[in-house]
Amino acid sequence: MTASNSGRETARELNKVRQYRQYLPDPLSDELLDTLLEIARWTGSSRNTQPWHFIVVTDKERLRQLSEVREAIGWIATAPAAIALVMNGANPASESYDEGRVTERLLIGAHLLGLGGGTAWYGDENQQARAKEILGIPAGRTARSLVALGSITTSRDPRPGAAAGGRKPLAELVSREQFGKSRS
Amino acid sequence: MTASNSGRETARELNKVRQYRQYLPDPLSDELLDTLLEIARWTGSSRNTQPWHFIVVTDKERLRQLSEVREAIGWIATAPAAIALVMNGANPASESYDEGRVTERLLIGAHLLGLGGGTAWYGDENQQARAKEILGIPAGRTARSLVALGSITTSRDPRPGAAAGGRKPLAELVSREQFGKSRS
Repeated sequence: MTASNSGRETARELNKVRQYRQYLPDPLSDELLDTLLEIARWTGSSRNTQPWHFIVVTDKERLRQLSEVREAIGWIATAPAAIALVMNGANPASESYDEGRVTERLLIGAHLLGLGGGTAWYGDENQQARAKEILGIPAGRTARSLVALGSITTSRDPRPGAAAGGRKPLAELVSREQFGKSRS
Repeated sequence: MTASNSGRETARELNKVRQYRQYLPDPLSDELLDTLLEIARWTGSSRNTQPWHFIVVTDKERLRQLSEVREAIGWIATAPAAIALVMNGANPASESYDEGRVTERLLIGAHLLGLGGGTAWYGDENQQARAKEILGIPAGRTARSLVALGSITTSRDPRPGAAAGGRKPLAELVSREQFGKSRS
């Protein structure tokens, strides 16, 4: 089976998805938000448990409060919208993996829709508790992160001391058949 | 900003990505595997640490050995290729999330390339140790899962007692502004 040229082109589009931390003030339409929620909804999960709940936040004041939970996520105050991820809290290890899966879908979906997304972690247990309070999340659930969304102009990281972009070369990342063995 | 029609169409394509567990025997070309590895390589990660290494497995005997690590992943024996994920092992919680992110990219990439992918977890610590032995992975690293890849004809789950497909409706999954509050 060979992929169509358009399929290959779209697949390569994935390599352009970045983390965005600066947004234009334009609000996102309900239609765009619904398209993104559908994308999140169809994410696969361990035994199809769908161990998540999504809180759409567009209220500026609430976003500002969330941005103050931890200094490093101050940038979310500029986002016109965010989808806060609430995990069931029953199985931390597999739910963390599933949270990564749904986050990746949202970032890819935002990119394909001409928007930008950024994942923001609340921080330690106290900071998570503060975020849960702002979002009215019951104590038994897990809330670690949200995905900020908006129209974008730059992927520059506005934070001082931000990590460098780019990626390691494949030669450093890939083995063949067994760890440490290179391709023949 | 509004997305192009083609962008919206591609974004909706994400909703068709499924977990595949049955593959045609056709081998994947090196070019397709490289395209998928590039997609994995560009995945975002916590502080851009890229806490992963990828082992491409195409040897039938090795895939058969891996398929015997746990009964529920017997289906990987039919895959012509798999990318085993090796995580650095320094930060279990954030690496589990990053592992989910890279898995999701590979599943989406496979779909866009006209292939199918399936994530398979080795199981408990003993089973992970067995998989690490088969793949020559050093003890200090984490190896929990691989992504099987191949040409596909059906997304039917061949396992007895398999979880049902489909997803919960958005009304059940989404709140507005705070947990439990519905849209106005």
